Amino acid sequence: MKTLRIGQVGHKWIGRAHTHAYTDLPIFFEIDARIERTILCSNEESVFPVAERWGWKRATLDWREVVSDPEVDIVIVAAPSAIHKDVAIAAARNGKHVFCEKPLALTLEDAVEMTQVGKEAGVINMIGFNYRRVPALALARQMIQDGTIGEIRHFRGIYQQDWLVDPEFPLVWRVQKKDAGYGSHGDLGAHVIDTARFLVGEVSQVVCTQETFVTERPIATAMDGFSATSSGEMGTVDVDDASSMLLRFKDQQAIGYIEATRFGAGHRNQNRIEVNGSKGSFIFDMEQMNELLYYSTEDPANLQGYRRIQVGEATHPYMANWWPAGHIIGFGDTFVNEAFDFVNAVIAGEQVTPDFVDGLKCQFVLDAADRSAKNGVWVKVEDSL
Amino acid sequence: MKTLRIGQVGHKWIGRAHTHAYTDLPIFFEIDARIERTILCSNEESVFPVAERWGWKRATLDWREVVSDPEVDIVIVAAPSAIHKDVAIAAARNGKHVFCEKPLALTLEDAVEMTQVGKEAGVINMIGFNYRRVPALALARQMIQDGTIGEIRHFRGIYQQDWLVDPEFPLVWRVQKKDAGYGSHGDLGAHVIDTARFLVGEVSQVVCTQETFVTERPIATAMDGFSATSSGEMGTVDVDDASSMLLRFKDQQAIGYIEATRFGAGHRNQNRIEVNGSKGSFIFDMEQMNELLYYSTEDPANLQGYRRIQVGEATHPYMANWWPAGHIIGFGDTFVNEAFDFVNAVIAGEQVTPDFVDGLKCQFVLDAADRSAKNGVWVKVEDSL
Amino acid sequence: MKTLRIGQVGHKWIGRAHTHAYTDLPIFFEIDARIERTILCSNEESVFPVAERWGWKRATLDWREVVSDPEVDIVIVAAPSAIHKDVAIAAARNGKHVFCEKPLALTLEDAVEMTQVGKEAGVINMIGFNYRRVPALALARQMIQDGTIGEIRHFRGIYQQDWLVDPEFPLVWRVQKKDAGYGSHGDLGAHVIDTARFLVGEVSQVVCTQETFVTERPIATAMDGFSATSSGEMGTVDVDDASSMLLRFKDQQAIGYIEATRFGAGHRNQNRIEVNGSKGSFIFDMEQMNELLYYSTEDPANLQGYRRIQVGEATHPYMANWWPAGHIIGFGDTFVNEAFDFVNAVIAGEQVTPDFVDGLKCQFVLDAADRSAKNGVWVKVEDSL
Amino acid sequence: MKTLRIGQVGHKWIGRAHTHAYTDLPIFFEIDARIERTILCSNEESVFPVAERWGWKRATLDWREVVSDPEVDIVIVAAPSAIHKDVAIAAARNGKHVFCEKPLALTLEDAVEMTQVGKEAGVINMIGFNYRRVPALALARQMIQDGTIGEIRHFRGIYQQDWLVDPEFPLVWRVQKKDAGYGSHGDLGAHVIDTARFLVGEVSQVVCTQETFVTERPIATAMDGFSATSSGEMGTVDVDDASSMLLRFKDQQAIGYIEATRFGAGHRNQNRIEVNGSKGSFIFDMEQMNELLYYSTEDPANLQGYRRIQVGEATHPYMANWWPAGHIIGFGDTFVNEAFDFVNAVIAGEQVTPDFVDGLKCQFVLDAADRSAKNGVWVKVEDSL
Repeated sequence: MKTLRIGQVGHKWIGRAHTHAYTDLPIFFEIDARIERTILCSNEESVFPVAERWGWKRATLDWREVVSDPEVDIVIVAAPSAIHKDVAIAAARNGKHVFCEKPLALTLEDAVEMTQVGKEAGVINMIGFNYRRVPALALARQMIQDGTIGEIRHFRGIYQQDWLVDPEFPLVWRVQKKDAGYGSHGDLGAHVIDTARFLVGEVSQVVCTQETFVTERPIATAMDGFSATSSGEMGTVDVDDASSMLLRFKDQQAIGYIEATRFGAGHRNQNRIEVNGSKGSFIFDMEQMNELLYYSTEDPANLQGYRRIQVGEATHPYMANWWPAGHIIGFGDTFVNEAFDFVNAVIAGEQVTPDFVDGLKCQFVLDAADRSAKNGVWVKVEDSL
Repeated sequence: MKTLRIGQVGHKWIGRAHTHAYTDLPIFFEIDARIERTILCSNEESVFPVAERWGWKRATLDWREVVSDPEVDIVIVAAPSAIHKDVAIAAARNGKHVFCEKPLALTLEDAVEMTQVGKEAGVINMIGFNYRRVPALALARQMIQDGTIGEIRHFRGIYQQDWLVDPEFPLVWRVQKKDAGYGSHGDLGAHVIDTARFLVGEVSQVVCTQETFVTERPIATAMDGFSATSSGEMGTVDVDDASSMLLRFKDQQAIGYIEATRFGAGHRNQNRIEVNGSKGSFIFDMEQMNELLYYSTEDPANLQGYRRIQVGEATHPYMANWWPAGHIIGFGDTFVNEAFDFVNAVIAGEQVTPDFVDGLKCQFVLDAADRSAKNGVWVKVEDSL
Repeated sequence: MKTLRIGQVGHKWIGRAHTHAYTDLPIFFEIDARIERTILCSNEESVFPVAERWGWKRATLDWREVVSDPEVDIVIVAAPSAIHKDVAIAAARNGKHVFCEKPLALTLEDAVEMTQVGKEAGVINMIGFNYRRVPALALARQMIQDGTIGEIRHFRGIYQQDWLVDPEFPLVWRVQKKDAGYGSHGDLGAHVIDTARFLVGEVSQVVCTQETFVTERPIATAMDGFSATSSGEMGTVDVDDASSMLLRFKDQQAIGYIEATRFGAGHRNQNRIEVNGSKGSFIFDMEQMNELLYYSTEDPANLQGYRRIQVGEATHPYMANWWPAGHIIGFGDTFVNEAFDFVNAVIAGEQVTPDFVDGLKCQFVLDAADRSAKNGVWVKVEDSL
Repeated sequence: MKTLRIGQVGHKWIGRAHTHAYTDLPIFFEIDARIERTILCSNEESVFPVAERWGWKRATLDWREVVSDPEVDIVIVAAPSAIHKDVAIAAARNGKHVFCEKPLALTLEDAVEMTQVGKEAGVINMIGFNYRRVPALALARQMIQDGTIGEIRHFRGIYQQDWLVDPEFPLVWRVQKKDAGYGSHGDLGAHVIDTARFLVGEVSQVVCTQETFVTERPIATAMDGFSATSSGEMGTVDVDDASSMLLRFKDQQAIGYIEATRFGAGHRNQNRIEVNGSKGSFIFDMEQMNELLYYSTEDPANLQGYRRIQVGEATHPYMANWWPAGHIIGFGDTFVNEAFDFVNAVIAGEQVTPDFVDGLKCQFVLDAADRSAKNGVWVKVEDSL
């Protein structure tokens, strides 16, 4: 049995999610390879004790060491968005299979370049839209694909977080254009756009409005997850706090609505997806990610209603590998499902989705919407690659 | 004690709602007048037996008789939208106080005229945005007014019905431009626009997209509520099935989203309102209209969460007049609350809201959105009266 | 068309519920009679202005006048439990049809006597278990009767109110044995026992435990609904605050649990009913009384889940007479449904359920449970009449 | 830093849960020891490939090898209940720290012996009531301990599974008295009894009724989790399918209700806990295990309601170690929390709860209830150890 040797860049919370995924993968899934956590990288000294605790063989402060390490087969990019491009491109050029967290890049140009390099290098590449690995959304996709809910009429995706509601919350890298590219638009909106593409199809045009409610914040000194500390000095937020857009699709008459906000007081991490079709509907909420609400127009007239499917049956995507029915999985476990698909793609030598092309297509929508927010008009989404 | 004599035009389901309201009013509320159901009008012969069953003294087939009846103090316009203007204007000119169902009129011009006549005639006028009389929304308004949820960041109002999902559902007056003015946009959207104005304030600009999913339907022979019969002949739907819009407000930085659809499979009548503020949020859903979900950023850190307020306490708007706490009221009862406010306005001789001006302002938004849907650009909402 | 003339004893909140029912009945239902609100009775002077506001022709302070009035066809007993027996028996003996609120009587002996007189007098009699007229529970009953959920395995009925949680809440008649017979056991428990009988069948044996958490309260000076005032003087609660029982059924292998409490902090009026069968289950909650959660074991394996049926379709019991689908009814409207069935029974001259026999059978269960709570053993429920 | 070497008996789904826990522990929690997965045991040959996939150094078919292995510090008993006693006692006598899955033993006598041996051996022992490590329930316990909800009035714990609803589901070891001791009573009921003790305190007496709805089933040939295969031959179920009990507590006036059933159609694994106190209430449901519904009587009168706390804040028990707020954990992660507490107890050399004494106290309640179900009387719970 082959051994797949992993190099991972990033050791904060999303780095932990990936380490967890590759550690747990063989416990839950049967794969035709051994996984070795070979080298962990961060630009902070804490990477050394963390690597030891997390079970990595080695650690480094230099990502170039990871991408050029002959003992590394797969590179996971789980570091801030600003270095996605450099790491991913170097890794791909060195023949490493690359998994890159979303968003693919800070700018459209970078995303195009990464996609081209990924293609030319002939390596397996994947982007971290892990919502596709939430079993309930994978089930929703199945139901759309097999016609269960008919032609799509409406797509609504509203992603609410609330960590910026407090005006004293520090100015972290996620609210700086140079580090994050966009604000909630690129961070949360990217997830929803990918979900829209996953469920409904390509977006043809968008109109968008954005707002920055709190423009000055104390400059951050450290951040991990939603926690941060700051000095007293103030700095300027130059990305959106909230972004809302109407959209239309290429091959569907459906109307779409996508919203991303960090001012949704009361929702730490709600991604609420709602789809209406000609034969049924469903509603998904990340806060109850093990459930899918489903309505069928074909139930008997007096017994119709949204049914709460607990997506925990062996017949549901991924779930045969987890617990007995009704024992829920958590956020981190979606990364195990994702790792399963990625590793299988590497073993089989066959590309998997969502890949860099999907990352780029998402970026086309983000970019079009961003221009719309500035110009105040509907903008056509590019689709030339 | 004075007697207020009512004349009502319309005897279908919304007519029943008003008859019910004026019948029940003295049972639940103390008012300084007697109510007499004087004359009921419809252009169908069934008005005679219905009037008798519903407790009206007289009935007629001619609305002109109602508006000119010297024994009538108040005219209720609860007939299809196409005749709102003629009845309301005639009644006002004859010195009757006028209650008119929404939407005020089929066109902006008519709405302007009605508002002017209402003003000049010096009569009390009111428009049937009964959602303002849902105690949970009245409570939400109080909470916004008194600063409980701080500055508004987001308003979302999504009104879903699903009676058009079936392509065989007949072509009723509500899907004909000449009779209804707009489709879901004017029917359901008007309610949400008014709620946005009620809770957040005046709308400054909108961008809108609309769709008609099913363009040919069998021509209706009769309709009441959501029930209809048809002959086999087909006709063309010339209004929207669904309408979605982004909006911005005049005096608030908030982003707004309003959607109205008759293709929301699974929702017979869901009007879901969500507001996020700088100090809290709330969520309302017409399907559970006796509840308001409320979140406060000021709760202790480890005990924060959306709380489900059962709006049934004596301290809640209108509810001291109903049942012991926790015994819910129904849709029809919101009309009793509405009648209470209207009758009190008439008795006091002081204008009440929402009045024809509110109806007109709503129409300005509907009109701007409709133009946006055609032109594909953001449209400024007029506010000159 | 015949006129049915009503005499009603009781003008507090439950009296209002019945006045509302007979006033609204012709507005929503087609019945083959006219309804006249003939005479309203209470032992408080306020009955005179109330009767006028509520549309009654006459009023009196003496219930004997009502039961002997030759102009009265139907007597509604909506006064405190302690006088149910005297009024109901006198009315029946005078040939009046009798509707009596629950519980039928304070003691088993009284209930037996009332039932016998009701039977001998040959009048139509009914008891106010209005939960049978909640459309969602009527639908549940249909589903059980037609085998939709198979053989019953579990019945759980938990009725929680919380007006006694505050130890300063006054000592009202409902917490005095001489006036109420039982505490929560007879007041709330009676509703649940009737629902168990309605849905599952006769109870064969019970074991019960009861508790009085707050034994001394300030003596009440007035009460209506859940509102009361008190002087400072203290008195002793001599009924249960909470009562819980296990039960077994005569013709079903099912296990039952029934609980009634006035210490369910957070629930003003929750009556939560849950039934599991061999082919499905349902859950009902009075706080969302327009909904029935239903689960079918026969749905496809990957699409199973509790579905939330909005019980508002024309095909649902009683609902064809109310609003367009999805517009909910309220607590008061269940009394209209109840009045509809009672009036039809009177017109047809055929007994309706639940009648005094049902009231008595409920009392047998209450009595057995009460003895069990004292003796600490399972008690067989009598069923000889 | 010390290394703790684990020996685990059991490699089915609950064994996987523990392997997962000790694998993930260092990724999420900082502990003062290294964890080594030393030896995995099962009586099935599949243990060898499974051990390799799961990261165990060695594997064996003989549990005696595990408990006597000088390289093993900790023994985890995650095998069927029938061998709990032998393995746990042998391990303790050999000076191993012992973690034993629930229920402690098949009989009260065995549980007493295990507890005594555990005590005499002076090893750290723990029992697998993992619900105590669900952060929402740990928070509930905190809230009760610090007086937030006042004196307890009601405890309700209803544990519903539905894998036996299908009469063709095989006769697996869990429905055989010789292997499982009890049916749902001991399996699910044990969890709820422990939760009652955790939240409210010691149980003083119980009355119980039980039922076996399907008495003959096809004999199982294999089982893992809720999946099983069978030959055609039939065998007899000699344990309860469902068990319901009323209970009273030693130091609280509260009334308790506990139910365990495998016939709760629609609930794969619902453990619904509800507690009412004099100052508030909470509701927990294992199906949404990241949430706690909390009601406070001290909220302002017009803003009271059950609030849905997402138990995902850094201030909540265990949650500072997991994801950013609002990213939920799963069933398996509760075992990581549990392992954290157990390992810390071993490192500190201080006993942790729940230990074998808790397992035994639970068994006293199970035993008393079982006798009550047979005798039909209230039974006092023993508490002598």
